[in-house]
Amino acid sequence: MDFFETVKRRRSVRRYTQEPVPSTVIETALDAALLAPNSSNLQTWEFYWVQSPDKKAALVKSCLNQGAARTAQELIVVVSNPNLYKKTAPELLKRLNSPNAPKEIGFYYGKLVPVLYGWTILAPVKWLIFNLVGLFRPIMRRPWSSRDIDEVCIKSAALASENFMLAVAAQGYDSCPMEGFDECRVKRILRLGYRHRVVMVISVGRRDPKGIWGEQLRFSKDWFVKRI
Amino acid sequence: MDFFETVKRRRSVRRYTQEPVPSTVIETALDAALLAPNSSNLQTWEFYWVQSPDKKAALVKSCLNQGAARTAQELIVVVSNPNLYKKTAPELLKRLNSPNAPKEIGFYYGKLVPVLYGWTILAPVKWLIFNLVGLFRPIMRRPWSSRDIDEVCIKSAALASENFMLAVAAQGYDSCPMEGFDECRVKRILRLGYRHRVVMVISVGRRDPKGIWGEQLRFSKDWFVKRI
Repeated sequence: MDFFETVKRRRSVRRYTQEPVPSTVIETALDAALLAPNSSNLQTWEFYWVQSPDKKAALVKSCLNQGAARTAQELIVVVSNPNLYKKTAPELLKRLNSPNAPKEIGFYYGKLVPVLYGWTILAPVKWLIFNLVGLFRPIMRRPWSSRDIDEVCIKSAALASENFMLAVAAQGYDSCPMEGFDECRVKRILRLGYRHRVVMVISVGRRDPKGIWGEQLRFSKDWFVKRI
Repeated sequence: MDFFETVKRRRSVRRYTQEPVPSTVIETALDAALLAPNSSNLQTWEFYWVQSPDKKAALVKSCLNQGAARTAQELIVVVSNPNLYKKTAPELLKRLNSPNAPKEIGFYYGKLVPVLYGWTILAPVKWLIFNLVGLFRPIMRRPWSSRDIDEVCIKSAALASENFMLAVAAQGYDSCPMEGFDECRVKRILRLGYRHRVVMVISVGRRDPKGIWGEQLRFSKDWFVKRI
């Protein structure tokens, strides 16, 4: 499907028909998700495709039993996991040997990423350094805290989520991104660790006409776009 | 352009040619960005298209003078602004009169959204309520803090950013999402307020062959996709 048609076709669908979704649709959408840009290419995202009926039922409950979850054919939980840097940073170091890449890349993945992502106990020290140096010259002010790192990884996972939902739309199916869930319970269902964050739960199915709340409602472009 | 071709075509480009980008390309991409799904449809995002040469030069410096900014034809700063709920929530209340929408929508936009987005001083109270109720039944554990609200808005802005970058790719141009910037300085250039957060700076242009670091590097799907 044409890209702009796909963007227009995608709507958040709150109720699906009982038509099953072929697993190739989900696989293809996951492939598209994994091609999203992401922070330093560390790919700190995870996608839990919940298939076991018990876990699915528990997940629907944790999504506050909302229609978009209850009537869904498939449920995918998008999760951020900063700790993946431990696996991906060394691999990137090995495989990033492009002549176009800057020389500092060895220092970046070898030394800086572990400090930024891993040494969370040094948060106040990082904050101090960033803000002292920042008095004199431009410098990144974040990430200094583990919450900042979460934010970076959540952002990347959101970019991937959008690819996923558009890819579902491009195949003629529908989706709904949900943030209305009990994060503690979802983490328990998926057996996630302390550093994981649940970014969103995406449901997939074929839209029921009642699953759409009318025309897509967007306010004037002038409210959001500033040309300066 | 076909959707999946677009996803594959999009690469993070670190150096652009001197070919200008027609303003229609940016406008079309902004239109696509504004169609992204977003939290409660509150559309708490802003897009600063920096055109003034002085501001552009200052922005490039604040992006640590990296090639993706320095050689860019156009620079768009994606910003989250939770305070937009004050404008969008009442409008949504007025205009969301679909028979498919749940009855609770009046309570949601009229009462709950202002408490969640606005009453930041009550953060500890919200935390306590969510976690006490959560002992007995599923409930959203967030947003209780202003940082949680930031996270929600940043997530929505990231979904829009992905639409923007894909729309640029679909029109044959290239982009790079940057998180390597000095947020304090960028906020000063754009005259942003306390609640604004700079989500990413996106540069746009036509790719220079040296602006790509070789084949797109993604690790095995098994590292990230879990079927449970």
